Amino acid sequence: MKIMFIGDIVGSPGRDIWKEYASKLKAKYKPDLTIVNGENAAAGKGITKKIYHELLEAGADVLTMGNHTWDKKEIFDFIDGADKMVRPANFPEGAPGTGLQFIKGLRKKAAVINLQGRTFMPPIDCPFRKADELIAIAEKETSVIFVDFHAEATSEKQALAWYLDGRVSAVIGTHTHVPTADERVLPSGTAYLSDAGMTGPYDGILGMEKEVIINKFITGLPGKFEVTKGRSQLNGVILDIDDQTGKAVSVKRIHISNEAPFFD
Amino acid sequence: MKIMFIGDIVGSPGRDIWKEYASKLKAKYKPDLTIVNGENAAAGKGITKKIYHELLEAGADVLTMGNHTWDKKEIFDFIDGADKMVRPANFPEGAPGTGLQFIKGLRKKAAVINLQGRTFMPPIDCPFRKADELIAIAEKETSVIFVDFHAEATSEKQALAWYLDGRVSAVIGTHTHVPTADERVLPSGTAYLSDAGMTGPYDGILGMEKEVIINKFITGLPGKFEVTKGRSQLNGVILDIDDQTGKAVSVKRIHISNEAPFFD
Amino acid sequence: MKIMFIGDIVGSPGRDIWKEYASKLKAKYKPDLTIVNGENAAAGKGITKKIYHELLEAGADVLTMGNHTWDKKEIFDFIDGADKMVRPANFPEGAPGTGLQFIKGLRKKAAVINLQGRTFMPPIDCPFRKADELIAIAEKETSVIFVDFHAEATSEKQALAWYLDGRVSAVIGTHTHVPTADERVLPSGTAYLSDAGMTGPYDGILGMEKEVIINKFITGLPGKFEVTKGRSQLNGVILDIDDQTGKAVSVKRIHISNEAPFFD
Amino acid sequence: MKIMFIGDIVGSPGRDIWKEYASKLKAKYKPDLTIVNGENAAAGKGITKKIYHELLEAGADVLTMGNHTWDKKEIFDFIDGADKMVRPANFPEGAPGTGLQFIKGLRKKAAVINLQGRTFMPPIDCPFRKADELIAIAEKETSVIFVDFHAEATSEKQALAWYLDGRVSAVIGTHTHVPTADERVLPSGTAYLSDAGMTGPYDGILGMEKEVIINKFITGLPGKFEVTKGRSQLNGVILDIDDQTGKAVSVKRIHISNEAPFFD
Ligand SMILES: [Fe+2]
Ligand SMILES: [Fe+2]
Ligand SMILES: [Fe+2]
Ligand SMILES: [Fe+2]
Ligand SMILES: [Fe+2]
Ligand SMILES: [Fe+2]
Ligand SMILES: [Fe+2]
Ligand SMILES: [Fe+2]
Repeated sequence: MKIMFIGDIVGSPGRDIWKEYASKLKAKYKPDLTIVNGENAAAGKGITKKIYHELLEAGADVLTMGNHTWDKKEIFDFIDGADKMVRPANFPEGAPGTGLQFIKGLRKKAAVINLQGRTFMPPIDCPFRKADELIAIAEKETSVIFVDFHAEATSEKQALAWYLDGRVSAVIGTHTHVPTADERVLPSGTAYLSDAGMTGPYDGILGMEKEVIINKFITGLPGKFEVTKGRSQLNGVILDIDDQTGKAVSVKRIHISNEAPFFD
Repeated sequence: MKIMFIGDIVGSPGRDIWKEYASKLKAKYKPDLTIVNGENAAAGKGITKKIYHELLEAGADVLTMGNHTWDKKEIFDFIDGADKMVRPANFPEGAPGTGLQFIKGLRKKAAVINLQGRTFMPPIDCPFRKADELIAIAEKETSVIFVDFHAEATSEKQALAWYLDGRVSAVIGTHTHVPTADERVLPSGTAYLSDAGMTGPYDGILGMEKEVIINKFITGLPGKFEVTKGRSQLNGVILDIDDQTGKAVSVKRIHISNEAPFFD
Repeated sequence: MKIMFIGDIVGSPGRDIWKEYASKLKAKYKPDLTIVNGENAAAGKGITKKIYHELLEAGADVLTMGNHTWDKKEIFDFIDGADKMVRPANFPEGAPGTGLQFIKGLRKKAAVINLQGRTFMPPIDCPFRKADELIAIAEKETSVIFVDFHAEATSEKQALAWYLDGRVSAVIGTHTHVPTADERVLPSGTAYLSDAGMTGPYDGILGMEKEVIINKFITGLPGKFEVTKGRSQLNGVILDIDDQTGKAVSVKRIHISNEAPFFD
Repeated sequence: MKIMFIGDIVGSPGRDIWKEYASKLKAKYKPDLTIVNGENAAAGKGITKKIYHELLEAGADVLTMGNHTWDKKEIFDFIDGADKMVRPANFPEGAPGTGLQFIKGLRKKAAVINLQGRTFMPPIDCPFRKADELIAIAEKETSVIFVDFHAEATSEKQALAWYLDGRVSAVIGTHTHVPTADERVLPSGTAYLSDAGMTGPYDGILGMEKEVIINKFITGLPGKFEVTKGRSQLNGVILDIDDQTGKAVSVKRIHISNEAPFFD
């Protein structure tokens, strides 16, 4: 089966470009399942119930999240009923929502897992052990297991990918908002990419307005971060996975921007 | 003029693949200047005088460094005489070595600058202000200014690139050891890539043996990190820069591995 | 001359206990100069113009600040005219306000300096070099130089104190909100205390309500931090400094709480 | 029962002052149980088997440890047989050693627990939940439960103490090497001190030689940290605990240095 994954949607520019290209991308790549990271979909920080439904209606089958999951307070009102959303599974017991969902693709059911790193990020439960635990549950239901590993450090991302090689179909990183060029299928069949990159403004800093961030780096003074305007980009991957074994056959990056326009 | 930049050489696998492909890459891309990051050249940590000369003789015109500059103690014995090496310029006054060198390329002299980030890294002087200072010096001598920004966070890398857009020919990131796919020429003419990636083992974690690093993430216990063996990779970029204006015309990634063999 | 220093005022409980005991403390200790850290005076985060004047009127001759200086936006409107306030001097050039003020005590003028650490804190300019620079200015005017070093790590605090020993009258730490018991006069005459502690609620976590902070540690979920209610405490030091030499003669902690009531 | 706790022994100066005063302190305070933190006992980093026995023979009934537990490799050879040692209990499953020991005091058996913080420290398991787990085991055996919480941030230390208030006899912090002055019995009967301070050199930086550490802060350059020489200090606490209820009655700091000589 084919899985399309789209990296962190940032604000309305991200939602707009997703809505603009979702059906074109589907026509081109014919994914059996479409996964979208939505942690920055609401003005760059978190997600609302309205936007959750908006992203699904535009073509996502399920959303993954990240460290910004809790930024909009209303998440606490709807996350427990949001059966098309996974938040980092290694938030400690007691956090609302879930980190594993089984989602029906066109050809087959897939397990979709979200995990968060701990290097240069707040201390939560161990993503490696949580992965072990969730894989044990998931593999009873399906051989196709997708992991969005939301993490900062390339060392932690590569470590998790090697640790899970052969046990999951893919480990695709998110969070840095920059797509990496290290896509590969590891020796035992797990597709890997350190980061899928973001979907939203093309000319900001991680999608946000440049001036206030540059000023913060130079002066140490705080500022209000806002989603920037102008040109947009979309980043993601398309995975080809063997239905029977759940092993990845290929992983290719998707990138759309003014400088790299979409061709069908 | 054309500038070829090769990302962090890691240990003997990195030195070997550099030596193997240096002349082939030069034959293919015809760079006027070749820059190599050598901060991990000696067993993954730092550099020795012997290796400094080895990398130059294999084809580098100048080496850039990073946070691992000081790992091998002998660096303190030879760095002040090493006129083909730049270490992060924003180490505070009093640190040996220099962060700016003028290097004669085939067509023109270029200024080569090394800077280090501070987000998720030790506090040193401000790379933004140090860049201002060095550009003021460099632009009196040449319009071609190359910056290796050795940093962890994509936000800081993008911020510096936007801050310097139009004032330097290129800001190429290093340190994460993973090549990013966001190469572009910014609107005012600065070529940018968040990270050039590393040159060395293909199957480790940032070039080091997997098992001990995975074990550290899972158990919290220390271990001895060693450069891993087996297949290698080489990552870098080739920049095309207008001699007169110093503006970048193009930036393309270079990647060699078993899965992406070199073609001339 | 005698200098009284009161540690971080937290919210209205901190302001109230300061107002309650200011004149009693002055009657008891007879300070020639009174310095109060006000970085948390407004609801635990930052300071307003009204509270700035309130703390001075209650008996402070000058306020020191810290990493929370910029939390209330109105600071940007009045800090440049606030001649009885120092913010960390090592915020980079361009930050409003100043990090050195000369304040007339009853017997003598003193230089009051505020510096901020960088270990486990955001990267700003070097507090060690900034101290050198400000001491060079200050010692032309007075031999009495007081430093509030607002920092997290005990290593950085001790390092600065030893570095400045004999060149300033006192290095008194703030920021951790917990008074330390290591007061001493270093061999060359600088009084030192790693942290003066806070002034405000006695039964919270650094002055804030316990439940939400405990919950954050356990679940990783965010929460709104609020100043807690109930019993209060006041923490500070009284320094005896030789007017001629500026050397410290003694440093004694001041602590007031229900369990250690004030005696005159 | 009375429990005497001595903060981090640093190197041979720490071992020497412990040996010099152990019996005098016991004669003065008559503790039923003596606990010593030994994480820095071997040249400032870790502990050897020889030193483990040395500290016990000098008068410790059990040793607590911290983040430096694993610094000396031989720890892996003897920790599993070291029944008078606890290392941070929240190292993940699979780490050798244990974080809970039952130790016979003169009057009663006590549970001794070691936990490590995560704020500004490497990510390991949650100390709050691990505490819950160990207390459930411990309270079946005894009402007297002592916790050495080895942590950096005062917020995390206070949070754990309030979280455990009424469930353990004492939460005494270690790791910063600076004694705090906030000793108190919390409302439900848990004795608390943010940090007990260190036992070793009086004139270094956390016990280590000043020059190289100051140089590191100023230049960013590495250096070899060594235990400093000269005058020593000893820091700790003496706890009075109700045998029946396990509630703390009092907590008092112990400090010995040239400036505060021991009196019996
Ligand atoms: Fe994101
Ligand atoms: Fe994120
Ligand atoms: Fe590197
Ligand atoms: Fe590096
Ligand atoms: Fe504060
Ligand atoms: Fe602070
Ligand atoms: Fe220690
Ligand atoms: Fe420690």
